[in-house]
Amino acid sequence: MKIQMAENVLKANDAVANANRQTLARADLLAINLMSAPGSGKTSLLEKTIPMLGEPCPSAVMVGDLQTSRDAERLDGLAIETIQINTGTGCHLSAAQVAQALGDLDLGRLAFLFIENVGNMVCPAAFDLGEHRKVVLLSVPEGDDKVAKYYTLFQQADAVLLTKTDLLGVLDFNIDRVREDLAKLNSRAPFIRLSSRTGEGMGEWMDWLHKERAAVTSAKGFR
Amino acid sequence: MKIQMAENVLKANDAVANANRQTLARADLLAINLMSAPGSGKTSLLEKTIPMLGEPCPSAVMVGDLQTSRDAERLDGLAIETIQINTGTGCHLSAAQVAQALGDLDLGRLAFLFIENVGNMVCPAAFDLGEHRKVVLLSVPEGDDKVAKYYTLFQQADAVLLTKTDLLGVLDFNIDRVREDLAKLNSRAPFIRLSSRTGEGMGEWMDWLHKERAAVTSAKGFR
Repeated sequence: MKIQMAENVLKANDAVANANRQTLARADLLAINLMSAPGSGKTSLLEKTIPMLGEPCPSAVMVGDLQTSRDAERLDGLAIETIQINTGTGCHLSAAQVAQALGDLDLGRLAFLFIENVGNMVCPAAFDLGEHRKVVLLSVPEGDDKVAKYYTLFQQADAVLLTKTDLLGVLDFNIDRVREDLAKLNSRAPFIRLSSRTGEGMGEWMDWLHKERAAVTSAKGFR
Repeated sequence: MKIQMAENVLKANDAVANANRQTLARADLLAINLMSAPGSGKTSLLEKTIPMLGEPCPSAVMVGDLQTSRDAERLDGLAIETIQINTGTGCHLSAAQVAQALGDLDLGRLAFLFIENVGNMVCPAAFDLGEHRKVVLLSVPEGDDKVAKYYTLFQQADAVLLTKTDLLGVLDFNIDRVREDLAKLNSRAPFIRLSSRTGEGMGEWMDWLHKERAAVTSAKGFR
């Protein structure tokens, strides 16, 4: 009975996610769902990424949080539009919340849409938002044992970003263990080492963003 | 309709949590529900805590994870009993999972029962397990903005532990901001600075554990 209810919620979400996908298919942009634990550096990464993409590639951001607009305030002025979605006690963004926010955006002006999900490594993995790509962050201080533990999230990632690599020298962290765990779950996602502090990996991350945007938009005949 | 379903799930959980509470009331122990984001240091804290409590105060641990038994393996040999609960895709421990694990423990031998919840700052806050005390960890690398964002968790904490304080000198972290945010939500919970690495705060944490155990068990006439 409980499983039945959960399936109905997921089915309803999937229907709205498919509508979002159709909306996004009519635009010349790449939509990315950023997922991670709280404090992995999603907002810090966007603070660095959006100015590097620059004026030729305008970005908008949707930010999911239970409460506060702290992340949206940090990104305001960098993205051309920033929408805070407060979920209350909700542990993930839903396709319906994204659909409503999509209605408030002028998609024709955008090259990138970043959807910063609620900080949570479990529930967001179950809710399709209609995005083009899923990007999962893991920060060095969280520890090298997290990929196998939170397998549902990592197995669906289109890219895995290891963030806060400036702390690799300070903390015990076995990168090989992470790579091995990831290889067992997901052989497709590139694994990018990143530090918003030192700039390590930002070039590789930029290249990935542009390549994926080209793949998504060229398939639709935009270029 | 969806809200109705969620309420039924929570009501069913509460009934089992009340049964757990009655089971625990017949034992001479303190049961603690440890909650935090992934990688905040719950297992590391227990690795330090259980030997410090020592033989006069035997501990058991229940560990919740989606998958793997990595945390239970780390604690095996320190606690007199360690039970791994794999939740699959479940984002929190439920009272029913704890009830089943309680049945496998010899509660008469225990002074402390630590229930390490799934690493998640949202969902565990909604599920009473029947524990005596809720302890919430926040690690320095997660950032000083998390209390207000994850308010449902922090407002019900009986103690808040700031972990990995050895990183305070390395990272930008405004402790006053955390204290101010916490004071608005929860004036009751002590705020303890802890480092499993340097040992900072372990004395204060031990004192709190013994005091709370005395409060719980003396109320029942055990001492």
